[in-house]
Amino acid sequence: MRVGVYPGTFDPVTLGHMDIIARGAKLVDRLIIGVATNPSKSPLFTLEERVAHVRRETAAIPNVAVVPFDALLMHFAEQQGASVIVRGLRAVADFEYEFQMAGMNQQLNSAIETVFLMADVALQPIASRLVKEIAAYGGAIDKFVSPAIAADVRARIAANAARG
Amino acid sequence: MRVGVYPGTFDPVTLGHMDIIARGAKLVDRLIIGVATNPSKSPLFTLEERVAHVRRETAAIPNVAVVPFDALLMHFAEQQGASVIVRGLRAVADFEYEFQMAGMNQQLNSAIETVFLMADVALQPIASRLVKEIAAYGGAIDKFVSPAIAADVRARIAANAARG
Amino acid sequence: MRVGVYPGTFDPVTLGHMDIIARGAKLVDRLIIGVATNPSKSPLFTLEERVAHVRRETAAIPNVAVVPFDALLMHFAEQQGASVIVRGLRAVADFEYEFQMAGMNQQLNSAIETVFLMADVALQPIASRLVKEIAAYGGAIDKFVSPAIAADVRARIAANAARG
Amino acid sequence: MRVGVYPGTFDPVTLGHMDIIARGAKLVDRLIIGVATNPSKSPLFTLEERVAHVRRETAAIPNVAVVPFDALLMHFAEQQGASVIVRGLRAVADFEYEFQMAGMNQQLNSAIETVFLMADVALQPIASRLVKEIAAYGGAIDKFVSPAIAADVRARIAANAARG
Amino acid sequence: MRVGVYPGTFDPVTLGHMDIIARGAKLVDRLIIGVATNPSKSPLFTLEERVAHVRRETAAIPNVAVVPFDALLMHFAEQQGASVIVRGLRAVADFEYEFQMAGMNQQLNSAIETVFLMADVALQPIASRLVKEIAAYGGAIDKFVSPAIAADVRARIAANAARG
Amino acid sequence: MRVGVYPGTFDPVTLGHMDIIARGAKLVDRLIIGVATNPSKSPLFTLEERVAHVRRETAAIPNVAVVPFDALLMHFAEQQGASVIVRGLRAVADFEYEFQMAGMNQQLNSAIETVFLMADVALQPIASRLVKEIAAYGGAIDKFVSPAIAADVRARIAANAARG
Repeated sequence: MRVGVYPGTFDPVTLGHMDIIARGAKLVDRLIIGVATNPSKSPLFTLEERVAHVRRETAAIPNVAVVPFDALLMHFAEQQGASVIVRGLRAVADFEYEFQMAGMNQQLNSAIETVFLMADVALQPIASRLVKEIAAYGGAIDKFVSPAIAADVRARIAANAARG
Repeated sequence: MRVGVYPGTFDPVTLGHMDIIARGAKLVDRLIIGVATNPSKSPLFTLEERVAHVRRETAAIPNVAVVPFDALLMHFAEQQGASVIVRGLRAVADFEYEFQMAGMNQQLNSAIETVFLMADVALQPIASRLVKEIAAYGGAIDKFVSPAIAADVRARIAANAARG
Repeated sequence: MRVGVYPGTFDPVTLGHMDIIARGAKLVDRLIIGVATNPSKSPLFTLEERVAHVRRETAAIPNVAVVPFDALLMHFAEQQGASVIVRGLRAVADFEYEFQMAGMNQQLNSAIETVFLMADVALQPIASRLVKEIAAYGGAIDKFVSPAIAADVRARIAANAARG
Repeated sequence: MRVGVYPGTFDPVTLGHMDIIARGAKLVDRLIIGVATNPSKSPLFTLEERVAHVRRETAAIPNVAVVPFDALLMHFAEQQGASVIVRGLRAVADFEYEFQMAGMNQQLNSAIETVFLMADVALQPIASRLVKEIAAYGGAIDKFVSPAIAADVRARIAANAARG
Repeated sequence: MRVGVYPGTFDPVTLGHMDIIARGAKLVDRLIIGVATNPSKSPLFTLEERVAHVRRETAAIPNVAVVPFDALLMHFAEQQGASVIVRGLRAVADFEYEFQMAGMNQQLNSAIETVFLMADVALQPIASRLVKEIAAYGGAIDKFVSPAIAADVRARIAANAARG
Repeated sequence: MRVGVYPGTFDPVTLGHMDIIARGAKLVDRLIIGVATNPSKSPLFTLEERVAHVRRETAAIPNVAVVPFDALLMHFAEQQGASVIVRGLRAVADFEYEFQMAGMNQQLNSAIETVFLMADVALQPIASRLVKEIAAYGGAIDKFVSPAIAADVRARIAANAARG
């Protein structure tokens, strides 16, 4: 059985992430979506919320599991029994960063292969960071995330604003 | 009448910005220079100072107006009646970020077109961030900004240093 | 009156070209589509055919004219009274080549501005060269060019094959 | 059973290709290496020779088959029952071209996924074209191809030179 | 006598840095390694520690000196009597940033030349930032830094963790 | 004594080449400009003419020699006793190709270092190929090459046109 790991912060999970998940789930027998704690980025949603979001959005894909992690990606992949790390590519800037990471990961464990997938071209400009920026200014984000995630983002931003 | 918006932080406005402004002002009937608040970047100059700087530097260009904004760029462009967003391109890294932004902006309002202009090649390496770094160490910035802006930058850095 | 020139070989004109033409036609008062002879590339269609194709495809856009040219682009733009050269950007490789051209064109005539537009993201991978490759092997090109162009391409490739 | 296709000209097959083949063979149950005719590039070795080379070099990998093809890649992949197209990435220039191809291939058949693998960093600069250039000038190519391929390349270049 | 300056933060010095130092030391008669204070990045090691590390690692290279600096790079180079600034290139992202810096430095002092060297391809993915990330999660960093630096990094991370 | 080799086709030698030559000549004690035969590119000028051009243009730089070569670059560098190969960088596309070449050259002879220099930013867009294209259409090339080279290019193009 081939196991793959698709790591990310998913703050929030976008239609671009969902597209990569759908593609990755066809590539391996079991796809573990690793949700990184990433405290340094001060996420909009807590780790628990982000795990719940990704679980809800991927509920219809049978061979996907969502697992939080706070470890070196390579250790997480080893612990999950993965032979594949799935990464989405959108642009040259992604590519360079990913290549550097993949190059160091080859050195850490050459038995686990990094595999790059390309999101649907229409979804490639979507970035979680820009989704949050647009929502913070009251812009429409419905073309970038699912309706449920859009509602969650709007509610959280309103709550943060109310708290001052 | 074609209205364009050229957004930026302008902290400080450089000769590279001025070159794009001159080019953009020929492309549209009225060019609105949108000065973004950008509090997250802790700018060297306040919003009011940056607006005043850009107004002073562009005083001789008749079809230019300088307007502060604290909103989603697309909303600002809509509110100004713009059909064009002007962006300067210098390098591949710019290009990628700009393309991602433009791709999401196409989704937000497909009637407003992002237009990329290329600064004079001799001005392309100039970046506000590097201008401030050079000035902070007492380096000469006269080839990168106007004499008046250079004096303002030196005065502000001296004042900040005096305050500790 | 602002006049723009959008140059290309258009062998054949694709949906990506059509998207840039539609965007460019809103940016200027009159858009001249310059169809380059380009004999060195041994095009699939003759210059006359390519001019006819672009005319047919743009018939519904009132401020567009289609003009063949066999000259330096800058001379063609000057002769057409243009103040703007429109170029489509798709990818970093385009960007670099375009930047080099635009940099030299700034030196040739600094009064004519090169303006870069971004095609709809879903249309960005389309390249005339790949369209011809796909068609040559009997692949479907209907998502990349209009039905009429697709028929023309298929007919020409069949005729070329029959001729040996 | 997951079937993958790894297409190329392999003129000659390099250590970089071999590295991608070894990685791809672990990713799918059966990896078809598609050797393209590519007459336009006037290859050093005939199609039959290149197929024989790749077969000899991959003889020890049980789930690999080598098949010549003269068709649209997507049609070849469909005919082989593949759900995956494997591509090696080395550099940004590769990436851009590959992305454009993959974007058009998504449109041709969205059920067949393009998967990008990264060669060992030490092997990334290797290009068949440069191997041939180096060999043509009598340079050592032993670090870029297997000993058997190096001998074949030297013999062919000597034979071509003798023929004038 | 040609003097070169190779500036960096070296937090920590990696095998990639060492490779560039070895190459740079052959290019000039005397190579000054400038260790930047860089307080904004909150380094893992103090300036004194980083200077000591680089001195220890380069002890066997006779024409190398290690000097801390807290100044504009160009002023530091002038003060050291350098005619050359040495920079390592790994990837396009490096290249762009470096080009922008070098472009501004040409304006500051055209007599001091920026010279780019390429690290051994196998060492190119190594980045100090990733070394620290890997070590922070208990991953093995022995392939990226010398044994002595690896021990120093592990000790410092353990001490930081003990302090909370 | 440090010897460097700066290879190229120089068809024709441009102000960008001259800028790199001036920079390279300060970096080494003796700079050999290697003029490549390059028959595959069907150059505008013969090898002898190109050698004569570069000799004439560099006559005022005492430590430069101009040498034709028809060999593997690395063999030419070894034969000239060079420890350095000088390459000019202008853009990312250059960078990628150069990196691939330099990576393979590291394998061929690790004692000869490839050194990348950056041309003056104002000269970076200049490419011999575009100079010839512009001249072929009667465009002005005086900002891209010296007056003497411009005259030679115009004369050759006129002679070629007269010959049909």
